[in-house]
Amino acid sequence: MRKVFQTELQHVNEELTQIATLVEQALIQASSSFLNADVQEAEEVISNDARIDFLQNQLDERSIDILALQGPVASDLRMIVGTLRMSSSLERMGDLARHVAQIARMRFPDKALPDSIVPIFEEIIECDKKIIKNVIQLLETRDLAYVDAISTAKIRINELHQSVFDALAAEEWGHNAQVTIDVTLASRYLERFGDHGVSVARKVTYLVTGDWNTLS
Amino acid sequence: MRKVFQTELQHVNEELTQIATLVEQALIQASSSFLNADVQEAEEVISNDARIDFLQNQLDERSIDILALQGPVASDLRMIVGTLRMSSSLERMGDLARHVAQIARMRFPDKALPDSIVPIFEEIIECDKKIIKNVIQLLETRDLAYVDAISTAKIRINELHQSVFDALAAEEWGHNAQVTIDVTLASRYLERFGDHGVSVARKVTYLVTGDWNTLS
Repeated sequence: MRKVFQTELQHVNEELTQIATLVEQALIQASSSFLNADVQEAEEVISNDARIDFLQNQLDERSIDILALQGPVASDLRMIVGTLRMSSSLERMGDLARHVAQIARMRFPDKALPDSIVPIFEEIIECDKKIIKNVIQLLETRDLAYVDAISTAKIRINELHQSVFDALAAEEWGHNAQVTIDVTLASRYLERFGDHGVSVARKVTYLVTGDWNTLS
Repeated sequence: MRKVFQTELQHVNEELTQIATLVEQALIQASSSFLNADVQEAEEVISNDARIDFLQNQLDERSIDILALQGPVASDLRMIVGTLRMSSSLERMGDLARHVAQIARMRFPDKALPDSIVPIFEEIIECDKKIIKNVIQLLETRDLAYVDAISTAKIRINELHQSVFDALAAEEWGHNAQVTIDVTLASRYLERFGDHGVSVARKVTYLVTGDWNTLS
């Protein structure tokens, strides 16, 4: 019985990692479509998002079945509840990547970003890529060494997100409101993407250490 | 045993309703602080948010204890898993109300909104108030008659959210980027507030009807 349960937990974790890998793919394509005004890539992100949603639903159903059939307790129970939460964060990260792709599609054939602000966004995107990459490693290995890189990247995103707003509010900005809206929302989406990555990292930390303070 | 379980489920539902009531209070005060540049109300929303977070954590812990100690199956199990999800949506609605209050605080003593766009925001806020009010009723009674009002209000919010962007992009707009950023983000926060309300309504519908399609 115990062995069956461990195998199931392992399946659950593999599925979580699989979803995270699709989210990474979504972020890579969404940011590329956004920076290069590539409408075909944007379309791919948008249509592939249904796959992430499907896998999340499937994983949630599997987790609920495990709760019903195995009645896990203690750390096994927390692992399953944690999975339900992490799948929800990952699904949301997929949505946020899709939102970025939708801005790219809406502005095509123009680029959504004025040249002057591209470098800040490139760095935000690099940080988000670092976050999802480390989230995947963390899910695969449960090695908390990956958590630091996630936290550090998120702190940097917060600074960059603020510097986007500073750039928009500066006198030299001079772009119209449509551009300001796109830049504001894209920055917000990419900042939230990072938040959800941190949230997954906190849950894994909690599951590994049992320390509830890591969640607050 | 069964009776104990039913009493616990009832407690869980009361706590969920209590959190929803605090979220309603947060929305009422946040929107008032935002429309009237009332910094004291904004401060209250911001400091009261910790209470919502605390209650959510407490409720989650209680739900996990129920899973561990009672090992519920079938609809009882789904009720507990549903609670974990709904508490997370409600906590997020509290955060979004706090974000609106934070904009009010940041712009004080000025109002964040130019007069011309106030009527659209008043209507969005009315819709969000309708949503959280009906969510509370729905949680208290599990009467699906409240779901329609929630969906209808959210559809209206989507239209209004779009019309905010149309107003910002119109030639007559003429406000600076800082104002455009505040308006964009506030509209987004209030729109997401509604999304989470719909998400709670869907979960209750699913728990009452058992129809998984209500969640997609």
